Amino acid sequence: MKSYRKELWFNAKTRRALINITPQVEECLRDSGVTEGLVLVNAMHITASVFINDDEAGLHSDFEKWLEKLAPEKPYSQYAHNSFEDNADAHLKRTIMGREVLVAVSGGKLDFGPWEQIFYGEFDGKRRKRVLVKIIGE
Amino acid sequence: MKSYRKELWFNAKTRRALINITPQVEECLRDSGVTEGLVLVNAMHITASVFINDDEAGLHSDFEKWLEKLAPEKPYSQYAHNSFEDNADAHLKRTIMGREVLVAVSGGKLDFGPWEQIFYGEFDGKRRKRVLVKIIGE
Amino acid sequence: MKSYRKELWFNAKTRRALINITPQVEECLRDSGVTEGLVLVNAMHITASVFINDDEAGLHSDFEKWLEKLAPEKPYSQYAHNSFEDNADAHLKRTIMGREVLVAVSGGKLDFGPWEQIFYGEFDGKRRKRVLVKIIGE
Repeated sequence: MKSYRKELWFNAKTRRALINITPQVEECLRDSGVTEGLVLVNAMHITASVFINDDEAGLHSDFEKWLEKLAPEKPYSQYAHNSFEDNADAHLKRTIMGREVLVAVSGGKLDFGPWEQIFYGEFDGKRRKRVLVKIIGE
Repeated sequence: MKSYRKELWFNAKTRRALINITPQVEECLRDSGVTEGLVLVNAMHITASVFINDDEAGLHSDFEKWLEKLAPEKPYSQYAHNSFEDNADAHLKRTIMGREVLVAVSGGKLDFGPWEQIFYGEFDGKRRKRVLVKIIGE
Repeated sequence: MKSYRKELWFNAKTRRALINITPQVEECLRDSGVTEGLVLVNAMHITASVFINDDEAGLHSDFEKWLEKLAPEKPYSQYAHNSFEDNADAHLKRTIMGREVLVAVSGGKLDFGPWEQIFYGEFDGKRRKRVLVKIIGE
């Protein structure tokens, strides 16, 4: 069994951002030499997500509006977590979007449907944060 | 390490549908010959889900009502994604229900609790769409 | 390939509870002898979750309030599932929080970011329920 590990670093300029990281994950897969197996991609921070969806700007603005409706950032005082922090909403938003994705590797490629792309979802940005890519297989 | 891959195809007659795919996944597992390992089952489309829950009709109607409350289909104009599409709500619904499940394989069987069943959740149906089953192990 | 399986049992005294199970999962990992691989941790019941987030009491009370807003327990009669049951809300809450997490194993440790902790989320407690830990790797 082969095993591969890499951290991807991000520093979003805004509090919230959706970043397509598919090319970086594909590069990890090439580096790993794995042709059959599984790729785990997970946020290493609990106010960020990794998820799979469409790379379409309209949809991304729909996500922003929708997450703000389901788990609004403000007023900060509505959350018990926000005594020393202001990021309780980011913990909730990440819960909806998910921590991780697992992608099959077949024939040396990410085994994707037609529109699947991997995103890093930042909900408490303006600082350096990490995503873990772990690949196992043969 | 053994590795197995199969696509399951669906063509829901309605826009939304929940389909129990546990028997098909069990058949894949038998075909794979894997007795210890992991089964990844994921939607290959970004307006559909694979999730685990109860096969109970009342609960399924609760899911329909609840998802329509959290991410309503109409009016279509409420979503920026819907300039050429009408399926923004399906992207959001799938986000809540999840893209994938990972199931342990122990002693040649899906290692399930008493009521766990695997469902394909269709949120933008009336066309042919796919689920990927990827199994690795020994 | 090594493979390891263990069930963790819980009996929450209250209907809802969030329990940090990171130490038990770490103990499973030590017992398994796996140093490179993957750990799957999943609820075996469909009214419970396993998820990763922060071990902070304020945040946990925010989760409770937020889940009650998105999927209220009462009135029980609002859910079709509640003809013989009263736990439809628990199925919905678990859907938001997620069934499972997959954690990378690197150098014999759970490959975690600074604040990641694994929780069992109970939404229909006061009875014995199980979590599955499945580890594969080398």
